[in-house]
Amino acid sequence: MRIDLNADAGESYGVYTYGHDEALFPLVTSVNLACGFHAGSPTRIREAVARAKAHRVAVGAHPGFPDLMGFGRREMALSPEEVYADVLYQIGALHAFLRAEGLPLHHVKPHGALYLKACRDRETARAIAQAVRAFDPGVPLVVLPGTVYEEEARQAGLRVVLEAFPERAYLKSGQLAPRSMPGSWITDPEEAARRALRMVLEGRVEALDGGEVEVRAETLCIHGDNPRAPEVARAVRRALEEAGVEVRAF
Amino acid sequence: MRIDLNADAGESYGVYTYGHDEALFPLVTSVNLACGFHAGSPTRIREAVARAKAHRVAVGAHPGFPDLMGFGRREMALSPEEVYADVLYQIGALHAFLRAEGLPLHHVKPHGALYLKACRDRETARAIAQAVRAFDPGVPLVVLPGTVYEEEARQAGLRVVLEAFPERAYLKSGQLAPRSMPGSWITDPEEAARRALRMVLEGRVEALDGGEVEVRAETLCIHGDNPRAPEVARAVRRALEEAGVEVRAF
Amino acid sequence: MRIDLNADAGESYGVYTYGHDEALFPLVTSVNLACGFHAGSPTRIREAVARAKAHRVAVGAHPGFPDLMGFGRREMALSPEEVYADVLYQIGALHAFLRAEGLPLHHVKPHGALYLKACRDRETARAIAQAVRAFDPGVPLVVLPGTVYEEEARQAGLRVVLEAFPERAYLKSGQLAPRSMPGSWITDPEEAARRALRMVLEGRVEALDGGEVEVRAETLCIHGDNPRAPEVARAVRRALEEAGVEVRAF
Amino acid sequence: MRIDLNADAGESYGVYTYGHDEALFPLVTSVNLACGFHAGSPTRIREAVARAKAHRVAVGAHPGFPDLMGFGRREMALSPEEVYADVLYQIGALHAFLRAEGLPLHHVKPHGALYLKACRDRETARAIAQAVRAFDPGVPLVVLPGTVYEEEARQAGLRVVLEAFPERAYLKSGQLAPRSMPGSWITDPEEAARRALRMVLEGRVEALDGGEVEVRAETLCIHGDNPRAPEVARAVRRALEEAGVEVRAF
Repeated sequence: MRIDLNADAGESYGVYTYGHDEALFPLVTSVNLACGFHAGSPTRIREAVARAKAHRVAVGAHPGFPDLMGFGRREMALSPEEVYADVLYQIGALHAFLRAEGLPLHHVKPHGALYLKACRDRETARAIAQAVRAFDPGVPLVVLPGTVYEEEARQAGLRVVLEAFPERAYLKSGQLAPRSMPGSWITDPEEAARRALRMVLEGRVEALDGGEVEVRAETLCIHGDNPRAPEVARAVRRALEEAGVEVRAF
Repeated sequence: MRIDLNADAGESYGVYTYGHDEALFPLVTSVNLACGFHAGSPTRIREAVARAKAHRVAVGAHPGFPDLMGFGRREMALSPEEVYADVLYQIGALHAFLRAEGLPLHHVKPHGALYLKACRDRETARAIAQAVRAFDPGVPLVVLPGTVYEEEARQAGLRVVLEAFPERAYLKSGQLAPRSMPGSWITDPEEAARRALRMVLEGRVEALDGGEVEVRAETLCIHGDNPRAPEVARAVRRALEEAGVEVRAF
Repeated sequence: MRIDLNADAGESYGVYTYGHDEALFPLVTSVNLACGFHAGSPTRIREAVARAKAHRVAVGAHPGFPDLMGFGRREMALSPEEVYADVLYQIGALHAFLRAEGLPLHHVKPHGALYLKACRDRETARAIAQAVRAFDPGVPLVVLPGTVYEEEARQAGLRVVLEAFPERAYLKSGQLAPRSMPGSWITDPEEAARRALRMVLEGRVEALDGGEVEVRAETLCIHGDNPRAPEVARAVRRALEEAGVEVRAF
Repeated sequence: MRIDLNADAGESYGVYTYGHDEALFPLVTSVNLACGFHAGSPTRIREAVARAKAHRVAVGAHPGFPDLMGFGRREMALSPEEVYADVLYQIGALHAFLRAEGLPLHHVKPHGALYLKACRDRETARAIAQAVRAFDPGVPLVVLPGTVYEEEARQAGLRVVLEAFPERAYLKSGQLAPRSMPGSWITDPEEAARRALRMVLEGRVEALDGGEVEVRAETLCIHGDNPRAPEVARAVRRALEEAGVEVRAF
């Protein structure tokens, strides 16, 4: 039994600090670093890469929409050609800092509205997968299972890493409960830890709309911008390790 | 006898088109492609890389200050750490497009105010050289001979490529004549061609303030944003080839 | 009989020039000037305002999505609060240049994807109308007739100016034909002029899908980024004036 | 005896929060709000204006260099025309939010590197003064006394408001001690309060390089991004009020 814990990070920009990188990096096993479009300026990316190296955390690229003002959380009607070029650009920019530190690019995971759009728009998903393949066909893509995004990543011949969210409620359909739905967020660290453990050990979890839902995962996402993110990460990690699960980058 | 002809290119951005890439690419042997900070959006960078590949033109990165509004022509007081990170970021971003097309990164040449600052500010020069070395110590840096920038590039152990400007007047000190000085620009294509030929064959050219000046060059820069740029490139190339000089990327 | 001819303008940015302002300003009676988000840098806005003043053309604000890379043509999922703040910001920025030249803010017309979204999304339309009212309830809003955008502009108590498009085909439903539909663009200047004349004199025009469609308009839009834009503007204006229609800002 | 306490504010951007607006607004009498170039996105500007209104704090515009990545702290070689247009644009943008709330534009104070450049570069100072005058000749400009910036503001016929810095050390020449000099920052709130009081009551303060220096001021600047900023503001305000000085916007 083995699982990766990932968190979005490196989302500071110039004088602006965001998230809880310092507290989180010792607790997770991989990070998705912003690449400058939705967040992350060059000096802050460099700082995040150095921190990841110091903590031996695997580093993935976290490309987003070109929307710093909206932090990449606002869907944008980009053409597939634009998605391809924007993702390729961002992967390359982040990769330069990894290369300078002698680190590999461990994976790619799109950010925010780009991730969500990829899950339901096949052309966006395909453009992301093609950008990753064009850069390096050996780099895995982190995906939400059961989506067109997963399908397109496989279709492109990429290694696919399935992701689950212990802090998010699921519907029995297998989908994440919309954020607007009451109960869609699990804020109690111990409850998140309990859910994480069920996901890893049993491959299932309670659904918000009744019954249970199958959840397949090779990596669990810890939401890095939550003020209690370090607590959640600590609780989840401890629960997993106490149950004998190996917590390690995929 | 052999020389490279380089031009800045790929400086379009979104719907905005800049320069004369279509006409110039068949005439030069290397291009310096904007990387998104002073110019160059991802889709337009991709387009420029494809054009370079089609014309078998060598592609270098052309990083600039983060100033799209000023096209990287306005000096900015960046710290050496900021220069390092900004240059590394931009090299990586451009490199991703080259990698996707199976092309090597041929060289790095900084843009506009960053290039000029490197020529007289040792810390800026060193930061650029260190960024290139951190990315790939085998990538040559294009420099203005006789500057602290040349010194720092050599100090960093990089291959240094000397550049001269057939369309710019030189002073007998060896420096380029300031743009504000009358006669500092050579606008006649045939005159530029004659000067290019003297630079390559004799290693010298007339100085604006009298006498002659030694000019060492492995690459000649054609100013790509001049409306007559294609004419200049054509005249220079023809003059060189008729004199038996091999025009080829360094 | 009287009509206004409007064109988008002031869409240059830094060294980048866009559109055909120089040729168009003598031909139209009002311009919609970009405000810095989808296009238009401060020095280029200032230049456009000076040109409008010289040609005695009425100046409106042309706010767009914060997306220079996509020229404001890519829909973005902004909240109503974000639309309100972005529009208010842009109106104020443009207004400062008008104020400095002693010119009034003649109208507001949103740009590209923001205009289109307002036509079908009531909350976006309301946010735009409220921003204009908050700035100055006396400033008219240019709208596409028969849309929720028109409704919300009226609801906010603003003066509403109806717009029609002689270069775009209409469906018999009254809607503009989608750009992807064959025949949706009228590229012949004389044909555009003929349609403009029918719109103004008869209040109707042929529909692309058969029959005729009612078209109410106080202003006709000339697409400024078309290479033939000046020809179209000239043909439309001449046709109108020869028919005795007064061509003047509303 | 009367004095204004000002602080830079409204410097948040999108999801990024900066400074201590919530704690500072009840303590100061005027704020300088970022206008979107070095900091401040439209929704965050709107939020800051609402907060100022709630606390009845006078609002000035705080235009900076177009450098979000560097927070406007990096000098940029803008031409006077560019400074004029950038400042005018930013004043207008901020003003729209004031107008929507029925608040006047109380003053203008440039930010960071733009302020410092204006103090020693006459053309930059003149461009700023002309932009303010073009927008509204009745709006005061906050200046550092004894600089070309003060001269140009007066020359332009603007009302000039002299500013002093209780948290910064002065040299006997009257200049601020460079930030790199040991002792150049006063970090103890009580010491800052003591200095503020001397400045207001006696018009002088101890110089870092010996002796005393005359300090004329109508407004005292509290550095808003210091973590102890609210403490400093509280101590300064209390000391002034206990001494019978009226603390009120100029």
